[in-house]
Amino acid sequence: MSKKDRLDSLNNRGTMIFQNDQFFSFSTDAILLSRFASIPKSGKIVDLCAGNGAIALNIADLTKANITLIELQEELAQLAQKSINFNNFQNQLSIMNINLNNSLNFISHDSIDSIVCNPPYFKASKKSNQNPNQHLAIARHELKTNFDEICFIASKLLKTKGHFNLVHRPDRFLEIISTLQKYNLTPKRIQFVYPNISKEANMLLIDAIKGGSTDGIKFLPPLYIYDQNGNYTKEVLKFYDQ
Amino acid sequence: MSKKDRLDSLNNRGTMIFQNDQFFSFSTDAILLSRFASIPKSGKIVDLCAGNGAIALNIADLTKANITLIELQEELAQLAQKSINFNNFQNQLSIMNINLNNSLNFISHDSIDSIVCNPPYFKASKKSNQNPNQHLAIARHELKTNFDEICFIASKLLKTKGHFNLVHRPDRFLEIISTLQKYNLTPKRIQFVYPNISKEANMLLIDAIKGGSTDGIKFLPPLYIYDQNGNYTKEVLKFYDQ
Repeated sequence: MSKKDRLDSLNNRGTMIFQNDQFFSFSTDAILLSRFASIPKSGKIVDLCAGNGAIALNIADLTKANITLIELQEELAQLAQKSINFNNFQNQLSIMNINLNNSLNFISHDSIDSIVCNPPYFKASKKSNQNPNQHLAIARHELKTNFDEICFIASKLLKTKGHFNLVHRPDRFLEIISTLQKYNLTPKRIQFVYPNISKEANMLLIDAIKGGSTDGIKFLPPLYIYDQNGNYTKEVLKFYDQ
Repeated sequence: MSKKDRLDSLNNRGTMIFQNDQFFSFSTDAILLSRFASIPKSGKIVDLCAGNGAIALNIADLTKANITLIELQEELAQLAQKSINFNNFQNQLSIMNINLNNSLNFISHDSIDSIVCNPPYFKASKKSNQNPNQHLAIARHELKTNFDEICFIASKLLKTKGHFNLVHRPDRFLEIISTLQKYNLTPKRIQFVYPNISKEANMLLIDAIKGGSTDGIKFLPPLYIYDQNGNYTKEVLKFYDQ
């Protein structure tokens, strides 16, 4: 299987990432969350649902914080480990190949400064839409976890005032907001992402603070992926180029 | 006092509106809500916190529905009545000069198809920011009502599947969403309004449905008020011109 792994450029600072379309390849979502997230200069970061590590790898050289990647699927965890080794990030990045609900047994509660998470977007019930490739289905559908569990775990792991940064789908917005608040994670910064200037939003970036006050939420200027000619906007290209 | 009333154009279909800066003049918010709101072709509409009637007057010739305006302040209700008479809307628009919590005694519950509301934006507690002009203070601050009461009343008046259309401030977003849901008003369409392309959102348009499902909320393309030269964008000018 690993013969099909390919090595791609992740940013223009020299970070490389191993990918394999059979298992998972990172998407724009991960790039946008890397750029949006509140990342402390030091301390501890956790990447929940890390996949092949795109977010953690992309922020590694922007912080001195230690980053723990949690990924259930063995093949994806191995891809991430290969990239960690290739980039010489072994002293800063560490991957745990476990179900995220098991992370509470390994990581101290109330100890994490910031969590990044690109979760499965779709509910498990919509089986007709699931990818027949089980690796891709697990990454996209809530087959092994769900948003409620992810928020429960994030809240347990985070310090008070720690940041939970996530990307998700706007059509689940009401559930997302109420579930975050259920676990004392208060949305403080939100950015909607639109395919172009005339379409409805199809992506949502949220920075929630554990124990944050419910006053003063901010909605950042919207982000467009494509311009009117169907090319990436300058803003998105800039993120890929950073 | 009425000597200072002035007659302004409200749209390019010939609707006129009496204004008086001493009491109240409509703002962009009312124009944007008129354009955003779900307006039935017939049936019954209520304008809560109607002010001088800008929203009701602006939608009157777009629907055959009867429109009831609820406005507490006598001077504003009189301005609205003058405009209703001037435009010959007496058979379609009717104003009740009462506190909105009294509207439940006059209007049948579960009878309204759509409600439009441009409520006071600011909490009563922030007295330092209140306008010394009591008329303007009541229109801007929650001195005589509050968002919880408005949602309670809207939910009582609306039919199941009726629409509650409102404009408000994004910094109260979490409270707005939770209060709407408390009264079984499910946000279904949301549009954020930004001063320009580089600023945070400063206005929020919401269409909530009484008894609506929590799945499938839509975030419309964002709206910008000013272009990079500080002039109204074409889109906003178009609303004023409609």
